[in-house]
Amino acid sequence: MNLRTDPAATASDLASLDPRALAERIFADAAAMSPDRVGLSRPAYSAVESRMLAYLEETARGLGLETWRDPGDNLVVAAPGDTDRAARAGYLGSHVDTVPEGGNYDGLAGVVAGLLALLANVREGTSAGRVPLRVLALRGEESAWFGRAYMGSLALFGRLGGGALAAKRRDGVGTLADAMRETGLPVERIAAGETLVDPKAFAFFVELHIEQGPVLVERKWPVAGVTGIRGNIRHREIRCLGEAGHSGAIPRWLRRDAVFAMCELVMRMDEHWATIQQHGGDLVLTTGIVQTDAAHHAMSRIPGEVSFSFEARSLDAGTLEAVERLAHAEARAIERDRGVRFEFDAPVRSAPASLDPAILQAILAEMEAQGLAAETVPSGAGHDAAVFSQAGVPSGMLFVRNTKGSHNPHEHMEIDDLMVAVGVMSRLGRTLVERAK
Amino acid sequence: MNLRTDPAATASDLASLDPRALAERIFADAAAMSPDRVGLSRPAYSAVESRMLAYLEETARGLGLETWRDPGDNLVVAAPGDTDRAARAGYLGSHVDTVPEGGNYDGLAGVVAGLLALLANVREGTSAGRVPLRVLALRGEESAWFGRAYMGSLALFGRLGGGALAAKRRDGVGTLADAMRETGLPVERIAAGETLVDPKAFAFFVELHIEQGPVLVERKWPVAGVTGIRGNIRHREIRCLGEAGHSGAIPRWLRRDAVFAMCELVMRMDEHWATIQQHGGDLVLTTGIVQTDAAHHAMSRIPGEVSFSFEARSLDAGTLEAVERLAHAEARAIERDRGVRFEFDAPVRSAPASLDPAILQAILAEMEAQGLAAETVPSGAGHDAAVFSQAGVPSGMLFVRNTKGSHNPHEHMEIDDLMVAVGVMSRLGRTLVERAK
Repeated sequence: MNLRTDPAATASDLASLDPRALAERIFADAAAMSPDRVGLSRPAYSAVESRMLAYLEETARGLGLETWRDPGDNLVVAAPGDTDRAARAGYLGSHVDTVPEGGNYDGLAGVVAGLLALLANVREGTSAGRVPLRVLALRGEESAWFGRAYMGSLALFGRLGGGALAAKRRDGVGTLADAMRETGLPVERIAAGETLVDPKAFAFFVELHIEQGPVLVERKWPVAGVTGIRGNIRHREIRCLGEAGHSGAIPRWLRRDAVFAMCELVMRMDEHWATIQQHGGDLVLTTGIVQTDAAHHAMSRIPGEVSFSFEARSLDAGTLEAVERLAHAEARAIERDRGVRFEFDAPVRSAPASLDPAILQAILAEMEAQGLAAETVPSGAGHDAAVFSQAGVPSGMLFVRNTKGSHNPHEHMEIDDLMVAVGVMSRLGRTLVERAK
Repeated sequence: MNLRTDPAATASDLASLDPRALAERIFADAAAMSPDRVGLSRPAYSAVESRMLAYLEETARGLGLETWRDPGDNLVVAAPGDTDRAARAGYLGSHVDTVPEGGNYDGLAGVVAGLLALLANVREGTSAGRVPLRVLALRGEESAWFGRAYMGSLALFGRLGGGALAAKRRDGVGTLADAMRETGLPVERIAAGETLVDPKAFAFFVELHIEQGPVLVERKWPVAGVTGIRGNIRHREIRCLGEAGHSGAIPRWLRRDAVFAMCELVMRMDEHWATIQQHGGDLVLTTGIVQTDAAHHAMSRIPGEVSFSFEARSLDAGTLEAVERLAHAEARAIERDRGVRFEFDAPVRSAPASLDPAILQAILAEMEAQGLAAETVPSGAGHDAAVFSQAGVPSGMLFVRNTKGSHNPHEHMEIDDLMVAVGVMSRLGRTLVERAK
């Protein structure tokens, strides 16, 4: 696509648009730029992602803003005159890639909001603080392409790792290293774990993202502050082993029914979940996969085996460990009661990420100042903001209301809600750059 | 196989064997006659089944007994001189076919026990009563071959039905009608629902069968009387429909988790089961199949759908109906609590079959007389005896101890236990023919 001949992307008419119309234009152009069979696709470290960044860069320049690429080939947008690229600065932003056949808002909403917030400050002459306010449009956040999430932010901080670079793209065409090399990234430095950008160069990182759940819709909140990013403990496959047998011929006292035992474990954990939540804990539990053995199961056969997944997510690492211990303890009790055996696979752990309490307070203060309910929700999904936080960058997140979840073509954010979020973010950005040390 | 040249099957040496050695010889010959890849197979209405009956017939003749075929080509064995085929008589027996890759005892044990019981009475000169005592070796009991069980006994009483006759054999080669016709059965009369044998010709029918469960092994009982044959209500597929969603992003109060709801229904029914049993009711419940949707399920996705089977078995039709109502009532309660919907398929019902109380009492009296514990168990599986009972024939059953279940190559009955059962059956046969009207 030659952006210069695309009538929707000419710099001259963009500058004349009001912020709301500008947002609508950018989303429309982005959708047109990345169509797929259904929904749209902006693969991580692809030509489509590169075109998306080039379009945003041209748009920003058309609006009179400074732009450049960081060492990870992510796009930085700055206020006019803010040209010292190495200077410590505060950043608003998110990612521009999408899942395959995804929607237009997961990621891009945060980049557009950051751009409009910076623009508002520039136009009001309030962008100057102790550090400059900038926008960061990241590449490569979605795990769907190379099996690893947050590639863009992890690479910046030397934390991506060589193993991730060898991963094949989902279509089997090349590796992440190949894709990064074609994009122009310093693959050898990334493989060596070198820090491409000193975390101290980030005074803060604030990411707006569409909520990937229904809470804001149900609560009728256009935006909410994010308290933290839930970690998880996941068992891909727990097996319950009992003894198969004729369903009519084996009485209750001689049964070793794997499915009844599995159901009892799920229900016991459901009770613990309710109790933990009633005591103020943060937790969600999911058993997304349950399968009896199709080669042997039958309506009239006591199931001798069932396998199931089990996932706990919480903002609190201690809660996750407690749930893991409870699951094992309950399983042992059920083993005794029901004559079965549970085999737990090794759990995969992802630590919860804390967000900066001072930034969350600033977010809530701005929400209150604008007459919004100063409400918070945890993030169930992971985000680049967690990588920034783990690298020591004071980080915050806002969610904007979104229907129909994310990672599907039907995700839907009202531009009205985004504009409310932009109002919060533009004032928040000013506050944070004034406070920055 | 030419039986006359098979040294294991010559009439002359059979007559010299004691009952125990005779039983062992018959089982060894039967196994050699019907080998399969693993275990052994005697398909219903097959040449293998026909050879099995021919072998038993020749064996009985070698022992000096009368033999003939009934109108369903089942084998009848009678005492010497008992040649009035149309005479009302009392019968001991079972079936000779097996499931594919099954064992040697499911069915054949009851035929051998009947044969030895008749032989004992003949040799002791105690076979005469108000009616003669005979043995019936039935064809076609197993549903594995044509999808319908009890074909041999149903055909005798005009209850098999034309639909069953059109069923393809499991290997796709021909129909039940074809197989019956090749065997020499009057297929047109069976299709028309004609009664081939007047049920009044049966003064009684007593079937010995290996227990298809572990109760006798666990209780250390070699034999037990059977109280009745459990009926069942079966749902092949109940679907629970909730709403799929991101496992991390949807809090407890907004979840519509199909798996948690399914587990709760199973556990609620488990509690009802325990209660019904504590109050003396007879019941077993089984959910042998559970499947989340493999096309959409994931470890981190709230399951929007799960399908599962549900089967209740009981000696009591009222208990089955109560369980069915309870399942629906609990499902409705869970629907309200968890925001899901249960879709029940139409249940398939099989009525419990009662066995004759006077015959059961006679069985228990003989057991006591021989110093055995006069214990009873229900039959979870169906049997030809249920068909005889439903046709109005006073019917009874004994179970003999058997390890490792049935319908598999590992089913195992000790000949010692069979001989205990033969002792009960020979005296029982004499008692019943003396009492018969």
